[in-house]
Amino acid sequence: MFKSAGTVERLANRLARLPGIGRKSANRLAFHILKLPKEEAVELAEIICEVKEKVGFCSTCNNISETDPCQICNDPKRDRAVICIVEEISDAAAIDRVEGFGGLFHILGGRLSPLDGIGPDDLKIRELLARLDDGVSEIIIATNPNVEGEATAVYLSKLLKPMGLKVTRIARGLPVGSDLEYADSVTLGRALDGRQDY
Amino acid sequence: MFKSAGTVERLANRLARLPGIGRKSANRLAFHILKLPKEEAVELAEIICEVKEKVGFCSTCNNISETDPCQICNDPKRDRAVICIVEEISDAAAIDRVEGFGGLFHILGGRLSPLDGIGPDDLKIRELLARLDDGVSEIIIATNPNVEGEATAVYLSKLLKPMGLKVTRIARGLPVGSDLEYADSVTLGRALDGRQDY
Repeated sequence: MFKSAGTVERLANRLARLPGIGRKSANRLAFHILKLPKEEAVELAEIICEVKEKVGFCSTCNNISETDPCQICNDPKRDRAVICIVEEISDAAAIDRVEGFGGLFHILGGRLSPLDGIGPDDLKIRELLARLDDGVSEIIIATNPNVEGEATAVYLSKLLKPMGLKVTRIARGLPVGSDLEYADSVTLGRALDGRQDY
Repeated sequence: MFKSAGTVERLANRLARLPGIGRKSANRLAFHILKLPKEEAVELAEIICEVKEKVGFCSTCNNISETDPCQICNDPKRDRAVICIVEEISDAAAIDRVEGFGGLFHILGGRLSPLDGIGPDDLKIRELLARLDDGVSEIIIATNPNVEGEATAVYLSKLLKPMGLKVTRIARGLPVGSDLEYADSVTLGRALDGRQDY
């Protein structure tokens, strides 16, 4: 980058701190923004500020929302007896795209990860317990199927089962459309364990 | 993305229009920006606006600059007899990082590409001709070593040579540190053609 354009370099430095954007992508993005029509660049800047101003978190489920409680928690058509626990907002968004799921969410905001110093108190578990009134009958644990996600799921199930709730875990198995030949043996093992009657 | 957070979705839509950022990266970036401390998000927005306000183009060499002419064109220590022609600003920045090059630049703003409808009039060639006073002795053509870049180089050399200027092209050959075994034959051919005396 040229010394003669300190502002562009500052922009590139700032962009390079975003996740998944390296030094070269940041330079390219900075040049792209420089070439954008002024209105478009200003629009981008405005939306960034707007997001920080308008969007907050739902005090019930910890989802992002412009209202509190969020539209999902407020939706009278949703099944209040089912709460799906996920790690991140993006996970909830993915599940919400699945047709047929009409329950509520609870977003933990992470997973248990002792190596990173993340314990139960760092997740929204207290908030989860607070909303478990008698209307709730099933808890679906949809943390990621990796080491930390599974550990979080085990922790939650041990916490919730004694409360007389039905606690389920999303199925682990072969992805639809995949090839048995190329599946790893852990996934195959899970697929066999979780086999179902025809 | 959730319907309940229209602003986040608008931000993700806007980010997805940037080069090299797909739908999923855009969602991830939008969530990241949402989680940033407010000052940092505002800072990012401000730099984007600042870039558009402060940074313009040098009327001599078409480089980005906060002054006109730019710091490179204005630098009394630079060799005004040598002009290096490149396609994009980022190319000039790359060459400027090479120690030993102390000439001026001229940024074409693209390459000849008839398939995309880009002809000589769409590049800053008129501006190049306008600055070729008697002080200039050598033109180094440093367009990219691909089909369009080579075509642009041939076009420029045919235009500039009759004017009595020394016109050179950057060498094409094996990259330093590469393996002869894995080099493609076109590059190897160029490396042989361009061999130099010890």
